Amino acid sequence: MQHVLTYATDGRSTCDITDDVRTVVQRTDLTIGLAHVFMRHTSASLMICENVDPTVRGDVERWFAKNVVDGDAMYQHQIEGPDDMSGHIRSILTGMDLTVPITDNDLNLGVYQGIYLYEHRTDGRERQVVVTLLPAGP
Amino acid sequence: MQHVLTYATDGRSTCDITDDVRTVVQRTDLTIGLAHVFMRHTSASLMICENVDPTVRGDVERWFAKNVVDGDAMYQHQIEGPDDMSGHIRSILTGMDLTVPITDNDLNLGVYQGIYLYEHRTDGRERQVVVTLLPAGP
Amino acid sequence: MQHVLTYATDGRSTCDITDDVRTVVQRTDLTIGLAHVFMRHTSASLMICENVDPTVRGDVERWFAKNVVDGDAMYQHQIEGPDDMSGHIRSILTGMDLTVPITDNDLNLGVYQGIYLYEHRTDGRERQVVVTLLPAGP
Repeated sequence: MQHVLTYATDGRSTCDITDDVRTVVQRTDLTIGLAHVFMRHTSASLMICENVDPTVRGDVERWFAKNVVDGDAMYQHQIEGPDDMSGHIRSILTGMDLTVPITDNDLNLGVYQGIYLYEHRTDGRERQVVVTLLPAGP
Repeated sequence: MQHVLTYATDGRSTCDITDDVRTVVQRTDLTIGLAHVFMRHTSASLMICENVDPTVRGDVERWFAKNVVDGDAMYQHQIEGPDDMSGHIRSILTGMDLTVPITDNDLNLGVYQGIYLYEHRTDGRERQVVVTLLPAGP
Repeated sequence: MQHVLTYATDGRSTCDITDDVRTVVQRTDLTIGLAHVFMRHTSASLMICENVDPTVRGDVERWFAKNVVDGDAMYQHQIEGPDDMSGHIRSILTGMDLTVPITDNDLNLGVYQGIYLYEHRTDGRERQVVVTLLPAGP
């Protein structure tokens, strides 16, 4: 089972896509296995993050804004704007692929874990996320 | 095949869980496939690290302590203590999921690779790690 | 299906291994599933990166050179050279495992995504990469 989710992002921000991935799982009969989530872009990424207090994601953003500086003078790749090269580095550090266990036909996440799409470009984009489901072995 | 490993951590530290994951693999007949390891928490993580010289893991810790500062004044999420927000960022940077190939009914790790649970909170916690095994295709 | 790719690296640099992984996929009949790519070393890693402008990878390298300093005085693990401990930290931050969806017997990467082997040691090494293919569930 494989399904493509499409998002129109609002510029640099995080978006909880847990329920969308869960829905893909629950449309199947898969009881035990893995849900693989893949971002088909290099300046948006995926992360598992605390899902209760939105200031956590704000602090994650503040950390990246400070440590992966937009338009840093050392970047040679400046032509697509100051948020492009930093977006590539942020995406590499957070990762573009993610795999979550499936148990009892549901995502087996911890209570405080959510799956987030992390848009790093400052303007909105269409982003494709490929979800692939695999059954566990006996 | 899916199995939950439970650990009581001693506070901020690394713990080699390679043998525990290997044991889950060797309890099955799976010869070729993948072992997926998943941390069900957002302030503890998983990493593959050099497994011979413990100062390597000490240096990894020193890098994170310097670059993801506990209780940084820029964090808005301070209510759970100075090690909580840094723990979330450390977990995102190291990752909460990990997948290792299985060959000949064993983990196909490099000679110097170990799988580590990385606790980022300064006090000990109970941590659940979900191991899921998948057979390779023909 | 599992296959080991072997590379002789030229020292610190990135190497596009996308076509090698694709060839492993296309040697099978697998139409929908996952390709798992695993680096069997702790000072070389794998990353998905923009694959058009080589200055992007140059900027990634500049970011790491600045943020994970070779031979940093705080490292206790210095005996294997100034690029060894930084290589371990760079590998943990970029990751040693990567999973990409397979669709229609091909890697389902975005148009601008390439899979790169990232050598972090300054001298060349032989590096083994294990590719494992898994079929999706129905």
